[in-house]
Amino acid sequence: MRAIVAESSEELSWRDVPDVAPDHGEILIKVISAGVNRADLLQAAGNYPPPPGASPIMGLEVSGTVVGIGEGTSDWQIGQEVCALLAGGGYAEYVAVPAAQVLPLPAGVSVSDAAGLPEVACTVWSNLVMTAHLSPGQLVLIHGGASGIGTHAIQVARALGARVAVTAGSAAKLDLCRELGAEVTICYRDEDFVARVKDATDGAGADVILDIMGASYLDRNINALAIDGQLVVIGMQGGVKGELNLGKLISKRARVIGTALRGRQVDGPTGKSTIVQGVTESVWPMIADKQVRPIIGATFPMEQAAKAHKLLASGEVTGKVLLTVP
Amino acid sequence: MRAIVAESSEELSWRDVPDVAPDHGEILIKVISAGVNRADLLQAAGNYPPPPGASPIMGLEVSGTVVGIGEGTSDWQIGQEVCALLAGGGYAEYVAVPAAQVLPLPAGVSVSDAAGLPEVACTVWSNLVMTAHLSPGQLVLIHGGASGIGTHAIQVARALGARVAVTAGSAAKLDLCRELGAEVTICYRDEDFVARVKDATDGAGADVILDIMGASYLDRNINALAIDGQLVVIGMQGGVKGELNLGKLISKRARVIGTALRGRQVDGPTGKSTIVQGVTESVWPMIADKQVRPIIGATFPMEQAAKAHKLLASGEVTGKVLLTVP
Repeated sequence: MRAIVAESSEELSWRDVPDVAPDHGEILIKVISAGVNRADLLQAAGNYPPPPGASPIMGLEVSGTVVGIGEGTSDWQIGQEVCALLAGGGYAEYVAVPAAQVLPLPAGVSVSDAAGLPEVACTVWSNLVMTAHLSPGQLVLIHGGASGIGTHAIQVARALGARVAVTAGSAAKLDLCRELGAEVTICYRDEDFVARVKDATDGAGADVILDIMGASYLDRNINALAIDGQLVVIGMQGGVKGELNLGKLISKRARVIGTALRGRQVDGPTGKSTIVQGVTESVWPMIADKQVRPIIGATFPMEQAAKAHKLLASGEVTGKVLLTVP
Repeated sequence: MRAIVAESSEELSWRDVPDVAPDHGEILIKVISAGVNRADLLQAAGNYPPPPGASPIMGLEVSGTVVGIGEGTSDWQIGQEVCALLAGGGYAEYVAVPAAQVLPLPAGVSVSDAAGLPEVACTVWSNLVMTAHLSPGQLVLIHGGASGIGTHAIQVARALGARVAVTAGSAAKLDLCRELGAEVTICYRDEDFVARVKDATDGAGADVILDIMGASYLDRNINALAIDGQLVVIGMQGGVKGELNLGKLISKRARVIGTALRGRQVDGPTGKSTIVQGVTESVWPMIADKQVRPIIGATFPMEQAAKAHKLLASGEVTGKVLLTVP
């Protein structure tokens, strides 16, 4: 089969690699589209080795057709159109994945658009619901509101009955966020998100913050939190090490939570299968009801993976970037 | 009535102050004993102002006799021996407290020893159980294992079926911890608690850490955490601001939680009444069953409050320090 091989972070070649086959409990998918994630950019640059046992090929999510079923599973049928959350291997003609990480297509979404859903849906569900227990009436601050995760998080938070504040870097991005349901839209280039969030909550602050900046926002995020607030850090675009003021954390009874999807086990109460099940049962109906829709910012043929990476790195895109298999 | 008035942090006078009376929903207690807490030392030094509406008098827990019942409550009876969790006011002949913060005496505990239980029991229950959901078989690392909170936390964690590691500063303190059920006892003066905890868990680390040091232990505590581990910071004896490595936090899917008991509301799912109810229903039976006992390190007459503060500050005491009303 063919797959993307990273000769360097700039040179991504679509070339022959060894075939894959479904192992015990796995499904083999013929890939139609693959989603691009920041983790792929880090992996191409050699900074994010795949977890033990995962494919060395990039790609954390795909959509496609079931073409093989491993022993020990009977959940899916040959020819079924599906999407899947992967530990790796998505930038390829075929990928093998544990059956518990396969999802049906949500109603009303094309098979190629569906490739942009597994990572954002599983990330948002595991963080906002399973980890932070976001409740109706609470305010969630979403940094990078126009990103793939951001655009999905806004919609899911609104569907859950929460209030949404976002940061983004341009008026066009903030307009998109508002259209998706964000009530408080903050341009991080010239506005103070702490003050804006306090203003929107009578001084109380955000109940939950979904953060992709890490160190550079750490102290301001704590300042923006309400009593019993939760800061969920899923990215470190602003650095790894930051000063934490424990006095503020204690006086707010607040928490800083680091999470990641990729390294999780398949099974267990916080494992990928539990997350996928939650998404299928709760988020897919939101999509069927048109409360949530996939936001696809750009699509490239697989051979142009390097171009897709460059676009995502530039920040000049809203929503997801997809790659289609020729 | 008489109460302790802090003329300065060294000069604590037992002298006449205005009487108190039970407000709506409050109980008036004639104090027999009061527990001494580190927060009292900070308050005497002017560094920990009482929360809005709380008594300006020190003292976060007492035992004694019910001598008055405010309107709107019928939970307690005149003459009943009780103990109570306070927002302040315990270093006095009388204290008024919301009825929901009053507890019966646990079976087998004298009324004067019971003064040493409300703060430690509510702190340990709210943190290890309500916040961290400590489970059977998990390992909890308790810093300051020989302290009032530490000695209680060891016993409750063992009663919950958890494994216990502790740090303390002397062989005698570590012996006490071992006697109370700690399996891994670590002298922080000359041992590396990260290495000891990893050794005890086949390299996995601690599931929960109950920390009183704050900044000075922050990075090492993160190093000592297991995947999905929780660091609960309830004290800052080692400083307020520390460097947090978010990369480690994310790769472990770990969390740093700051908590405090005093500023909590009476009502609500994380309020004092819920905590007191959990303690009465779950910890008092552990005491009745002799799985948990109060550890009283020293008792002073109220007039010697300054001496009691000095002893607690010195670190030369194990378990709780109590003051008795003359």
